[in-house]
Amino acid sequence: MNVVVQNIERADQAVIDALGKCGVATVHEAQGRKGLLAANMRPIYAGARLGASAVTISAPPCDNWMVHVAIEQVQDGDILVLAPTSPSNAGYFGDLLATSMQSRGGRGLIIDAGVRDIADLAEMKFPVWSSAVFAEGTVKETLGSVNVPVVCAGALVNPGDVIVADDDGVCVVRREEAEKVLEKARERIANEEEKRNRLASGELGLDMYNMRQRLADKGLKYV
Amino acid sequence: MNVVVQNIERADQAVIDALGKCGVATVHEAQGRKGLLAANMRPIYAGARLGASAVTISAPPCDNWMVHVAIEQVQDGDILVLAPTSPSNAGYFGDLLATSMQSRGGRGLIIDAGVRDIADLAEMKFPVWSSAVFAEGTVKETLGSVNVPVVCAGALVNPGDVIVADDDGVCVVRREEAEKVLEKARERIANEEEKRNRLASGELGLDMYNMRQRLADKGLKYV
Amino acid sequence: MNVVVQNIERADQAVIDALGKCGVATVHEAQGRKGLLAANMRPIYAGARLGASAVTISAPPCDNWMVHVAIEQVQDGDILVLAPTSPSNAGYFGDLLATSMQSRGGRGLIIDAGVRDIADLAEMKFPVWSSAVFAEGTVKETLGSVNVPVVCAGALVNPGDVIVADDDGVCVVRREEAEKVLEKARERIANEEEKRNRLASGELGLDMYNMRQRLADKGLKYV
Amino acid sequence: MNVVVQNIERADQAVIDALGKCGVATVHEAQGRKGLLAANMRPIYAGARLGASAVTISAPPCDNWMVHVAIEQVQDGDILVLAPTSPSNAGYFGDLLATSMQSRGGRGLIIDAGVRDIADLAEMKFPVWSSAVFAEGTVKETLGSVNVPVVCAGALVNPGDVIVADDDGVCVVRREEAEKVLEKARERIANEEEKRNRLASGELGLDMYNMRQRLADKGLKYV
Amino acid sequence: MNVVVQNIERADQAVIDALGKCGVATVHEAQGRKGLLAANMRPIYAGARLGASAVTISAPPCDNWMVHVAIEQVQDGDILVLAPTSPSNAGYFGDLLATSMQSRGGRGLIIDAGVRDIADLAEMKFPVWSSAVFAEGTVKETLGSVNVPVVCAGALVNPGDVIVADDDGVCVVRREEAEKVLEKARERIANEEEKRNRLASGELGLDMYNMRQRLADKGLKYV
Amino acid sequence: MNVVVQNIERADQAVIDALGKCGVATVHEAQGRKGLLAANMRPIYAGARLGASAVTISAPPCDNWMVHVAIEQVQDGDILVLAPTSPSNAGYFGDLLATSMQSRGGRGLIIDAGVRDIADLAEMKFPVWSSAVFAEGTVKETLGSVNVPVVCAGALVNPGDVIVADDDGVCVVRREEAEKVLEKARERIANEEEKRNRLASGELGLDMYNMRQRLADKGLKYV
Repeated sequence: MNVVVQNIERADQAVIDALGKCGVATVHEAQGRKGLLAANMRPIYAGARLGASAVTISAPPCDNWMVHVAIEQVQDGDILVLAPTSPSNAGYFGDLLATSMQSRGGRGLIIDAGVRDIADLAEMKFPVWSSAVFAEGTVKETLGSVNVPVVCAGALVNPGDVIVADDDGVCVVRREEAEKVLEKARERIANEEEKRNRLASGELGLDMYNMRQRLADKGLKYV
Repeated sequence: MNVVVQNIERADQAVIDALGKCGVATVHEAQGRKGLLAANMRPIYAGARLGASAVTISAPPCDNWMVHVAIEQVQDGDILVLAPTSPSNAGYFGDLLATSMQSRGGRGLIIDAGVRDIADLAEMKFPVWSSAVFAEGTVKETLGSVNVPVVCAGALVNPGDVIVADDDGVCVVRREEAEKVLEKARERIANEEEKRNRLASGELGLDMYNMRQRLADKGLKYV
Repeated sequence: MNVVVQNIERADQAVIDALGKCGVATVHEAQGRKGLLAANMRPIYAGARLGASAVTISAPPCDNWMVHVAIEQVQDGDILVLAPTSPSNAGYFGDLLATSMQSRGGRGLIIDAGVRDIADLAEMKFPVWSSAVFAEGTVKETLGSVNVPVVCAGALVNPGDVIVADDDGVCVVRREEAEKVLEKARERIANEEEKRNRLASGELGLDMYNMRQRLADKGLKYV
Repeated sequence: MNVVVQNIERADQAVIDALGKCGVATVHEAQGRKGLLAANMRPIYAGARLGASAVTISAPPCDNWMVHVAIEQVQDGDILVLAPTSPSNAGYFGDLLATSMQSRGGRGLIIDAGVRDIADLAEMKFPVWSSAVFAEGTVKETLGSVNVPVVCAGALVNPGDVIVADDDGVCVVRREEAEKVLEKARERIANEEEKRNRLASGELGLDMYNMRQRLADKGLKYV
Repeated sequence: MNVVVQNIERADQAVIDALGKCGVATVHEAQGRKGLLAANMRPIYAGARLGASAVTISAPPCDNWMVHVAIEQVQDGDILVLAPTSPSNAGYFGDLLATSMQSRGGRGLIIDAGVRDIADLAEMKFPVWSSAVFAEGTVKETLGSVNVPVVCAGALVNPGDVIVADDDGVCVVRREEAEKVLEKARERIANEEEKRNRLASGELGLDMYNMRQRLADKGLKYV
Repeated sequence: MNVVVQNIERADQAVIDALGKCGVATVHEAQGRKGLLAANMRPIYAGARLGASAVTISAPPCDNWMVHVAIEQVQDGDILVLAPTSPSNAGYFGDLLATSMQSRGGRGLIIDAGVRDIADLAEMKFPVWSSAVFAEGTVKETLGSVNVPVVCAGALVNPGDVIVADDDGVCVVRREEAEKVLEKARERIANEEEKRNRLASGELGLDMYNMRQRLADKGLKYV
């Protein structure tokens, strides 16, 4: 019942990196407004932005044994995504594990639980999005699984799915949809550049998007 | 039922600006300890401080259509105050809308819901106080109203009321009370300067405020 | 019933300072994974780290009178620890009280309630760990007690206990255990330095901690 | 600043009673989907349903002095609506105050804070909708106001507004709109009776409301 | 992108009913401690217990249009499972929809949002497990999907999966594992009966489960 | 470090029982408004009321091994008080453990975590006050302690302290203060009986407590 899946497929690294540059809001919109993890998943420091390939962890509450197991499965460009099997805010992860991750090219951590040593992690430029910052220690007593589908902060994440994360939060993109989503995200960005210029010059969204008639049709009254 | 009120009264701009400089805690005290929005209204970056005149938005959940409508009503020195009609943490507002706001002299956003593109907003120096940071997209399907009284984060805000916001949160001052509150706030600040000096020199609040007798009368025992 | 205990024992100042340098996660582990205050106790700015001796306050909700009483009991190297007798997020403490604290050598504040003037406090380098930032004013009507045992954010704190706080949160160490805990914390740090180097060089935790056999014994399957 | 308004207007008692019989969901819809207090306002026992005229209380946190003041203003058919000026879950109200209320014809209590003695209140058939059940005692030290507009659980309530409450929660109806809302509520109920019969007989909402074409137009696909 | 899947597979009805009788705690344990929806999913009245086959709904926030669409897909023995695409506590469902459900043999509703008319639903014996009770009305403007996999209250639910719900909450069983889980649940129940008798007669769990040696080995001290 | 304290002192059983009859609100007031556990500790069914002697459990998150250990220490008239060492809502306790408790004269459970099988527990008349109802299973891997002081839901509970619990929540009385608190509670009840009669007859609290002058002195205005 407790397994480590060793061979997982990943999206193309160039696609992953490019999605990371697009950012969470854009990618979320580009794939039809889906894939966001819950709003309480916040970065431990401002300014990080990344795309990475998910190595998933299903871990017992307050037990970080599986993190050690998962790191062996990490390749350059990967990110850990940890979902506890019961709600926990314990600090599963700190600077030693981050050191190990960085030595393998791991890019960060998404965890619906706690993280600690965040001053050190910020200095190491190791980004974490978590639902808590808490120093509570964990044990190494009970098995979980690595690289199985998990529900993390309300979103289904499969191993090899693409994680996009920045100051706005975290979004997951299905591995098999990554290319298509990137294409749409790029269209969106190109499109926004022109809009930004028009809005900056004083044009109103009401006019730019032709909203006035539809507002009147729906019954909006100006008084 | 869904209206846009186009002509609203505003307080004197000099008064608004001066209230902003006084800061939230001082203004709140100066008007008799009232007017605070709930404590979960937090700034997206540290260090912003402002006074501004409220343009209010009553918006459906996850629908930001009325933001576009409201921006047309914004004048130099205004701030948007958005209250959803049902709890929502969706991201009603991002960098494009902020661009539009800035082009009209809009100073920021108060929203009892989510905001996104916060890295961009921070770079643009466009301050937002919100109850969530979340990239969830919104639709443009249902009408709301602009410049009607709203209850935002537990506080009643009328269009044209003065908003004071800083790292401590957000406070609303009734338009018609703005001058009087400013006067009291200034007295308070003048008064505090002397107190600060005395406390810095080692004098105790117990002595400075003559508290010892009243404490003894109430029955406090030193052991 | 409402008392101020004037003579409390404190741990050795060198031990207190050294514990502060060890940090919350290390000290928490060194004393057997106990003593953490709840995870919602967050610093008002990043980067503060301290050890200090607790002067405790049991205060009525929204009433900061006892803070003034407590400051008289503060010595160089102390920190205030305030627990309200009923849940409150009011702003019990601001820049004037911080000024008074600093003039007496007070190092900071731990409060399971609100704090205000946080921009000023950050500029003054006066660290606060709180469960809320809120400008709500308080009154001075009802007595509490100073230097009695309190439960603050879920942890029992006795006057004279050692407080360790940093970006990870807050930990309390019993005064009488402070030396022993420091010793263990130092062992832990020494121990971690070697581990960090090995992990940085690419060695896996699985090997460094000899976990593979025990994982297999528990039934973990690699597929 | 602290006032008791003694003469307030009330809606017609027959209208108030009739609104109570319509229930919260119906009245909320009938007035255009507005007026609900927040969802955490829950009844202390199941099965109560009422309409009543609001006597409002703005009370300091953990201080129930104003409840005594307010009860003098209560007439037959009234309900107390208490909003604390700072968040509190203290138990402002218990069986003695309920006894006093019942002796004056008071119908219940709406409180965005705590209530206690709920076993007694249930036995007395004195309904309360509150955001907490908590035995924490209160003091009588600080003034508030009675029969001023308050924001209670996110909704503005004026003295004399009509409160409708049942197992679904609490809704406020503006005094001056009460009759019109009752009329619409009754239409709605009449209308629903026929719908209920058709649905009970197996007709689908899709057909009864002619939704199929509009769903297809929006792009819904059956696969 | 918005679809209604019309033909879904269901587990054997006898298996579904039998799982319902086993109850949530037993079924959760029998399938290896997985499948629970979050703890805030509570029944609207005590005493309901059921097994049913999931018809899933992915619905926009505050928009219950898809509920009407989903009811057409309901067969005798089914239950609706609604997950909003953005957090919402609006009241998507009331007595009219319940009437329609009952006319088709629908057994209840699982909803990570609000429900209303709960007094009527209780009288109708139509059970609902929800994260909120709230009368807030919804609109019918935006499409969602029916019978697609959804994440509801933190758990992945596929159409045709088996829902078990009682006063302890809600558990989902994969359709294809239903029979095997039922078998294990029955073993567990048989096993518990004997244990219950031994415990009732005064035997200790410590002895019945042979825990004493293992506790001593781990280092538990009796003092 | 992990201990079971076997010999604890208990208050007099008659005192314990009498405190239970007084109820939570009265006992809390009688001991000077202290001792309440947090407001989220709710009974699993309405109508239970008890006094009992605390057998305390400090338990790891999601691990109920120590409950078995604790039951051996339970005597007639005792109640278990479980505090997890890290926040958890797992279901530590169900009908089998309740059966074991009842066979030893145990009266109930106070737990700052989850409980399950609540339909069975209600039928058995085994009362539980908990912060969650959740079926999540636990393990038996890690030691804790029995009959050591614990902080449960924000309150310090020593083994042998008296627990009073009813529909209003849970209150702890220090063992050594139990008699004195009972005496004061009885005075309070006697005192309340007369007040209740006067209030029922229409006398106002304002008059009965002579509040009018003090209100006027503080500045309350009737308008």
